[in-house]
Amino acid sequence: MSKGKLFIISGPSGSGKDTVMSALFQRHPEIKLSISSITRPMRTGEVEGEKYHFISREEFESMIEHDQLLEHNVFVGNYYGTPKKPVIDCIESGSDMILEVDVNGAKQIKSKMPEAISIFIMPPSYKELERRLIGRGTDSMEVIEKRLSSALGEIARASEYDYVVTNDVVDRCVDDILHIILAQRLTFARQSNLIEEVLNKC
Amino acid sequence: MSKGKLFIISGPSGSGKDTVMSALFQRHPEIKLSISSITRPMRTGEVEGEKYHFISREEFESMIEHDQLLEHNVFVGNYYGTPKKPVIDCIESGSDMILEVDVNGAKQIKSKMPEAISIFIMPPSYKELERRLIGRGTDSMEVIEKRLSSALGEIARASEYDYVVTNDVVDRCVDDILHIILAQRLTFARQSNLIEEVLNKC
Repeated sequence: MSKGKLFIISGPSGSGKDTVMSALFQRHPEIKLSISSITRPMRTGEVEGEKYHFISREEFESMIEHDQLLEHNVFVGNYYGTPKKPVIDCIESGSDMILEVDVNGAKQIKSKMPEAISIFIMPPSYKELERRLIGRGTDSMEVIEKRLSSALGEIARASEYDYVVTNDVVDRCVDDILHIILAQRLTFARQSNLIEEVLNKC
Repeated sequence: MSKGKLFIISGPSGSGKDTVMSALFQRHPEIKLSISSITRPMRTGEVEGEKYHFISREEFESMIEHDQLLEHNVFVGNYYGTPKKPVIDCIESGSDMILEVDVNGAKQIKSKMPEAISIFIMPPSYKELERRLIGRGTDSMEVIEKRLSSALGEIARASEYDYVVTNDVVDRCVDDILHIILAQRLTFARQSNLIEEVLNKC
C-alpha cells in the first residue's frame, strides 16, 4: 500500500482561503483535513473534534515537551497546534491530508516533514486584496489596515512555499490545487504497485 | 518572464502513447513538441520539419562532436536525436515543451537536464498490453512476442521516471498528464512575477 501525502495550505486574509477550501473538500471528500488542538474555551455552536480538539493547557504543554506536535503557536494567551500522530497515521494509511496553517506554522512543519508539499493561496492583485478586506464593511479603517499589512507580510514570504495558486475565480483556484494534489498521486512511488502487477503478469 | 518546463514522455509499444499525445496537443496546443533530427531518407508523405528534420550523416556527427544533442541513438544504421538549442530556446521563451523518447533517450536527457520532468505511460494491465499488441492482427506471433518482451523491458525501467500515468481511458490519461504539466506552472518560480506585482501594489 503506498503512502498518502501531506499538503500544507496557507493564505492570508483576503485570499479567500476558506471558500476555496470548502469547495475543494466538496469536490474531493476523500482528502482529509487535519484537526488542530487548542486550549481556548469552546464557543457556542462549536463541537469537540469537528474543527478543533479542545484540550487543557497542561495536556498541550505535555505534548510540546514530548515533541508530539508538528507545529504550535500562542494566540491571545492560548495554545494552537497540530498533533503529529493523526497526521502520520493518515498518511501511512494511504490518504492525502491537508493542513491549514499560517506562514509560521508552515515553516515549522516543513522543517519536521520536508516531504510535505506547501501551497500558498494568493489574491489576484493588490487592488482586489484591498477590495476584499474593505468589502466586509464591518471593520474600522484601523482594523482593515492592520489586516492589509499582515496580509502583505505573509505574501512576502510566499517564496517559502513549493506552489503558489491565485484565487481569482474560486473553481479555477480549486482546479489548480487539485492539479498539485492529483499530480502527487502519479509519482513513481505511488504507482509502483501497478508496475509490479504488469511485470508479474497479474 | 518565467521559464517554461521540459517534459520527457515515454511509453512502450501497447501503451497507446501516440493516441494520448495527439489528444493532449489537441487540448493544449500551446505546448510545443520537440522535433527530432534523423539521417534516414525522407519517406513519401513526410515533410521536412513536420515530425523530423532530415539531415546528413556528416551534419549529425558534427552535432555529436560539438555536444549539440540532448540525446541520440542509432537505429538500423541511421542516427536519431534531439538537438539541444531549440529545446533550450523554447523553455527560455516561457513555453512548455514535450520530448517523446524511449527509456534510453530519457536517461540521456535526465543526465544533461536533471530539472526536466519525466513521465512514463503504462498500459493498465498485462492482459490489456497483450491484447493491444495482438489486436493489430497484422503481425506474426514472433513479431508480437518480440514487441511484448521489449515493452516489458521498458516497463521494468519505469522506476527511472518521476511520474507514471496509466492509459486505460485516453481522456483520463490526458487529464493525468495535464495535472503534472499544469502543476509545474504553479511552482513558486513561475508565480514570482505575480507576487512582486501584489507587493509593489500594481
